[in-house]
Amino acid sequence: MDEGASTITVSDVGEFGLIARVTQGLAPSPGTLLGPGDDAAVVAAPDGRVVVSTDTLLENRHFRRDWSSAEDVGHKAAARAFSDIAAMGARPTALVVALAAPGDLELTWIDGLMSGLRAECAQAEGAIVGGDVTAADTVMIGLTALGDLEGREPVTQAGARVGDLVAVCGRTGWAAAGFAVLSRGFRSPVQVVAAHRRPEPPYAQGPVAAQLGATSMTDLSDGLVGDLGHVAAASGVRIDLRAELLDVPAKLREVGAALNTDPLVWVLTGGDDYALAATFPRTIAVPAEWRVIGAVTEGEGVRVDGRRWSVGGHEHYR
Amino acid sequence: MDEGASTITVSDVGEFGLIARVTQGLAPSPGTLLGPGDDAAVVAAPDGRVVVSTDTLLENRHFRRDWSSAEDVGHKAAARAFSDIAAMGARPTALVVALAAPGDLELTWIDGLMSGLRAECAQAEGAIVGGDVTAADTVMIGLTALGDLEGREPVTQAGARVGDLVAVCGRTGWAAAGFAVLSRGFRSPVQVVAAHRRPEPPYAQGPVAAQLGATSMTDLSDGLVGDLGHVAAASGVRIDLRAELLDVPAKLREVGAALNTDPLVWVLTGGDDYALAATFPRTIAVPAEWRVIGAVTEGEGVRVDGRRWSVGGHEHYR
Repeated sequence: MDEGASTITVSDVGEFGLIARVTQGLAPSPGTLLGPGDDAAVVAAPDGRVVVSTDTLLENRHFRRDWSSAEDVGHKAAARAFSDIAAMGARPTALVVALAAPGDLELTWIDGLMSGLRAECAQAEGAIVGGDVTAADTVMIGLTALGDLEGREPVTQAGARVGDLVAVCGRTGWAAAGFAVLSRGFRSPVQVVAAHRRPEPPYAQGPVAAQLGATSMTDLSDGLVGDLGHVAAASGVRIDLRAELLDVPAKLREVGAALNTDPLVWVLTGGDDYALAATFPRTIAVPAEWRVIGAVTEGEGVRVDGRRWSVGGHEHYR
Repeated sequence: MDEGASTITVSDVGEFGLIARVTQGLAPSPGTLLGPGDDAAVVAAPDGRVVVSTDTLLENRHFRRDWSSAEDVGHKAAARAFSDIAAMGARPTALVVALAAPGDLELTWIDGLMSGLRAECAQAEGAIVGGDVTAADTVMIGLTALGDLEGREPVTQAGARVGDLVAVCGRTGWAAAGFAVLSRGFRSPVQVVAAHRRPEPPYAQGPVAAQLGATSMTDLSDGLVGDLGHVAAASGVRIDLRAELLDVPAKLREVGAALNTDPLVWVLTGGDDYALAATFPRTIAVPAEWRVIGAVTEGEGVRVDGRRWSVGGHEHYR
């Protein structure tokens, strides 16, 4: 047995050693006015308002250490946090990380997690500015993301208007297909497994859509039907999707055929891709990065080709 | 058996029912530009910078449901979060709450927690603006607090200068005495038990000290010696405390006598009171709310009457 670095645990270095470990290698950022190590951090908020969102990832509930590497978990956690910021039309600025971990966790897992968090922060152009570590029985990652509106009004879920077009930016259904593959004990096709492990939210398109005049926006954490259902409810409208407008790529059809699953179900109800969905007035030319998938009408709920979808998004405790 | 409201659990109402429950009764605040219910909240940051700090409270590690009521836990959690903001010299503005709870938790416990959080937010003049709920095996409360510097520079732990006076504002040792009482199976004296259950951080004195020109500041979560040790290390100085200047109230002496413990140990090393400690240049008249307890000298570490204290603050994993 190699008793090298990989066998050092969280307990071996203690709380302050762990704090030193997780804060090393953090890149300086122009918006970080005071970084980790004090009672609190100080972050630039040039707009005079700050956008804030919090999320928790729990081991064996939001990730499995045998399905995802530590780096993957870091990427996914930061993606989940910053996609909420982008969905308001804001630019991600900062992330604070509350980490709870058992004492026997290998330090290399923490290193991997932080590496993934740092890399995804670089993608989103936000910086890790602070955090907290605690002993616990399982790994828990609490992330709070901050963002700046750059002078724009926030794009809420409540602004969709009858007549608007509904559009989506980013992948939908890929993470669900990857989850289905992993659930059946497979590790390929790698494209869908990678999509489950490392979602790729189109961060920059949140501010782009806001700038263009999107009337409502949300990120897709619970799935297209589930999250657009929140938009429909908040806006007091109905959202009509047309299945023929949805992108069901060849790779998802292939996986669906292998697993005897209609891939359209993944596209409509799969969560964890963290794509963005928005509504645009018809006077606006929807950018090429966005795909129009339906329209806002009078009524309530979400319909697909006129039919109500009974398969909802993910809900805890159900 | 009464099968009334008290037997309704988190599972009975589900995730969205729980979200509705925790967001009801939240008071509007002028600084809350967009409150709970969307992808993220929007909070006023008039200073153009935002102070941010995150904390996690875990059942059976930071609180026990048989020692503290749900209201107490809410008070303590918010106090812990906002005292970090005050310690930077900032005014608390907002709180986001990440709550993880088992499905069989009684809904009345959640109601109590939120009631305590709301009440402590009112004390600190911050508002709950958003959050997240997740199913878990035990209760976990992740809090991220935001604050506004109102044009002042943040008061860090790194600014203490040789010659400064060291002063403390708020109770020290009371929560530790309460913990000692509860640990031995007692429930009184109520004053120290209450101090353990509901710390009373002097929030407003953080900005006051900053305004006056405090050179460094921290909140006392790990105890006077432990937290001032961080200040000494960050500032590259030694902190000399004089025991005769410390307040050891009659109540702590009484409890110490009953439990055969030197109450000075609680005052010097007890955490969880969330008092503020700061250093002031001698040219500044330290306000009446603050008690001078020592001075900053050349060297390193914290001394009490010239002696090094070996009993440190609380550290996880040790």
